[in-house]
Amino acid sequence: MLLAIPKEEILERQTTFINRLHEHQIDCAILFSVTDIFYLTGFHFTPTERPMGLLIDSTGKTHMFVPALEHEHTEMNAYVNHVHSYPEYPGIRHPMEYLKDVLAECHFTGKTVGIDSDGYGSPMGYRGPRVSDILSANFVSVGGWIQEARLIKSPNEIELIKESLRWSHLALRLLQSYSKPGLDAIEIEGRASQEASLTMLKALGQNFKAYSGYGNSAFAVFSGQVGPMSALPHAITQSITLKKGDTLGTGSDAAVYGYHSELERTMFVQEASREQERYFNLMVEAQNVAFRTIRAGIPASKVEEEVQRYFQDHGVTHLTRHHTGHSLGLLMHEAPFFDLGDQTILEPGMIFTVEPGIYVEGLGGFRHSETILVTEKGMEMLTYYPRDMESLICG
Amino acid sequence: MLLAIPKEEILERQTTFINRLHEHQIDCAILFSVTDIFYLTGFHFTPTERPMGLLIDSTGKTHMFVPALEHEHTEMNAYVNHVHSYPEYPGIRHPMEYLKDVLAECHFTGKTVGIDSDGYGSPMGYRGPRVSDILSANFVSVGGWIQEARLIKSPNEIELIKESLRWSHLALRLLQSYSKPGLDAIEIEGRASQEASLTMLKALGQNFKAYSGYGNSAFAVFSGQVGPMSALPHAITQSITLKKGDTLGTGSDAAVYGYHSELERTMFVQEASREQERYFNLMVEAQNVAFRTIRAGIPASKVEEEVQRYFQDHGVTHLTRHHTGHSLGLLMHEAPFFDLGDQTILEPGMIFTVEPGIYVEGLGGFRHSETILVTEKGMEMLTYYPRDMESLICG
Repeated sequence: MLLAIPKEEILERQTTFINRLHEHQIDCAILFSVTDIFYLTGFHFTPTERPMGLLIDSTGKTHMFVPALEHEHTEMNAYVNHVHSYPEYPGIRHPMEYLKDVLAECHFTGKTVGIDSDGYGSPMGYRGPRVSDILSANFVSVGGWIQEARLIKSPNEIELIKESLRWSHLALRLLQSYSKPGLDAIEIEGRASQEASLTMLKALGQNFKAYSGYGNSAFAVFSGQVGPMSALPHAITQSITLKKGDTLGTGSDAAVYGYHSELERTMFVQEASREQERYFNLMVEAQNVAFRTIRAGIPASKVEEEVQRYFQDHGVTHLTRHHTGHSLGLLMHEAPFFDLGDQTILEPGMIFTVEPGIYVEGLGGFRHSETILVTEKGMEMLTYYPRDMESLICG
Repeated sequence: MLLAIPKEEILERQTTFINRLHEHQIDCAILFSVTDIFYLTGFHFTPTERPMGLLIDSTGKTHMFVPALEHEHTEMNAYVNHVHSYPEYPGIRHPMEYLKDVLAECHFTGKTVGIDSDGYGSPMGYRGPRVSDILSANFVSVGGWIQEARLIKSPNEIELIKESLRWSHLALRLLQSYSKPGLDAIEIEGRASQEASLTMLKALGQNFKAYSGYGNSAFAVFSGQVGPMSALPHAITQSITLKKGDTLGTGSDAAVYGYHSELERTMFVQEASREQERYFNLMVEAQNVAFRTIRAGIPASKVEEEVQRYFQDHGVTHLTRHHTGHSLGLLMHEAPFFDLGDQTILEPGMIFTVEPGIYVEGLGGFRHSETILVTEKGMEMLTYYPRDMESLICG
């Protein structure tokens, strides 16, 4: 069972990036993006005020630059050739002064250097000079290069996303089975998330790393979307009690070696009215419109056009609030988007959510979210939770 | 009981900021920092690829600029005069084109405009023009102004941090009482965090908002710091079983209206060796050195100097990995720092952690963390969990 991206694949990612640098006559590179560094090195860390960066020198050697307190941790986990560290931030000498030394030692001076941003950035009290202040070189932006590389998922990445879905399905099933009128949303969420996480961690064993970036490795939530509050697509969790007839906006996720998936279902407590049923069916049919449209070779915008035409034909455009979906992987939202303005051509290996939504004030929000894989001829549905109304009545 | 910053205080924060703009002959401002926008408006949101910003026009009126799916949510929660929204990102028209219209309508053109950054930024697939590309104006950086404002906590902010500590103490007590040899770290963490969160949410009632940014409103963890692994200061949670004699690096936090605190304890499973006791006592005494040093009027670096001198006198400098502490509040790490390079003068109302650490390979990490308030004559200890060895043996 695959629980991590193998070292060879991570080293291949480095080679691909280095080759691309050379094609663009770029000698070396400096990257600060946390997600991109994880993608290229397998080193997952918690960003703080202390700067960290990945350097690629002109001989293709990789170097992590980290604070002393991460030195051993980096040596144990990062697939790089060298680890350099500085004592502390802000320090008597600023970390960027140490970086300056490392860059000089590694012969970055006077070279053509690709950078993803002109210095480290953090809201946690970090301040410091730009890279262009400490290094005399010819700078070229490589911002977005790794995000582009992350756009098409490898077979191993798809496996990890499928593994994530196994556990998000468990979390959502538990949430549904614990959802009963009179119970508090947070109690149901906590119980389902805790139980799913423990089961996941026990099943996957000691070597498994979730790298979730959140508290639980698997979780299922209402996100405050209980009853009329579910009409707010991004409401924030709050304490609320389930009542008979409530529309529930539910969702779940699990992290496997940093990879995420998305599964959302509109549920109802014990019963649904005709009106709820009508919007529910419109939403499910809008998803079907998307599923029939998706295939490699078409622009992402085409999917949104078809869904919007369907909503327009059924007179509910005024009840929509967002586009049909987004890509995802190491982050819960990534480009491209099923959006009128996104002309990206779909390719096999892209992962998307399909989640057109209808929001009715006073009644609730209606949105399922599936995770799908774009294939040559169409798509593969990766989520497998029931989508029909009858299966989604709880309590 | 105070569970949120009152509207009047948030409006005062706006007035203070606007006055400072005027003192600097700045007419209007555009802010993109999520934390700073929350501080100035009371509007807590999940940042995604969809840009959001706060505008302050030259008449002192406040405007939120948000995507359509956040429009009602913003109107319900943000203490601002106007809410403007755009359909979607990327959209047929880019959100920044809509922002351009709003800025023109609100008479930003040709003015002196303070900006915290030259455009919206997000790793979640966002790309867009800079503010300076869409607006013709005289730009001045106000980056860091709100971080400076957040440096001295108001009496209400201190109350919320104390409320946070009530629940992080509960979470840590539960973690300690559930810690027994043979049990899995994640199981203990999950049980303690879930129980503390539920108790917290029930006790504080329907109107309470944690705005934690994490899954649980209160949590206690080992952070993978069990036994020899505790020698890595920022190790990442993994599945590990507690054994008799293990050194445990434990910590807890709870969020109250977005405010955080920090409480960490070094614990031992059933027994501790002479060697563990020796490092434990050195660490506790290093904290005492810091406590005796802290008072308004001295530079932050002074605290670190005293702690480092103590460590040097006891021959354990080579076992230290980081400075003595950091400020915190809306973020878990904020400037200033108890660091040799931080010359910030301590002022009453500043909140800091005190957490000098000793890390011994093969034996474990030794670190308590207290949250303290700087006062005119010294400091007030806000954490009240026992610090002595006898109280910290578990199982």
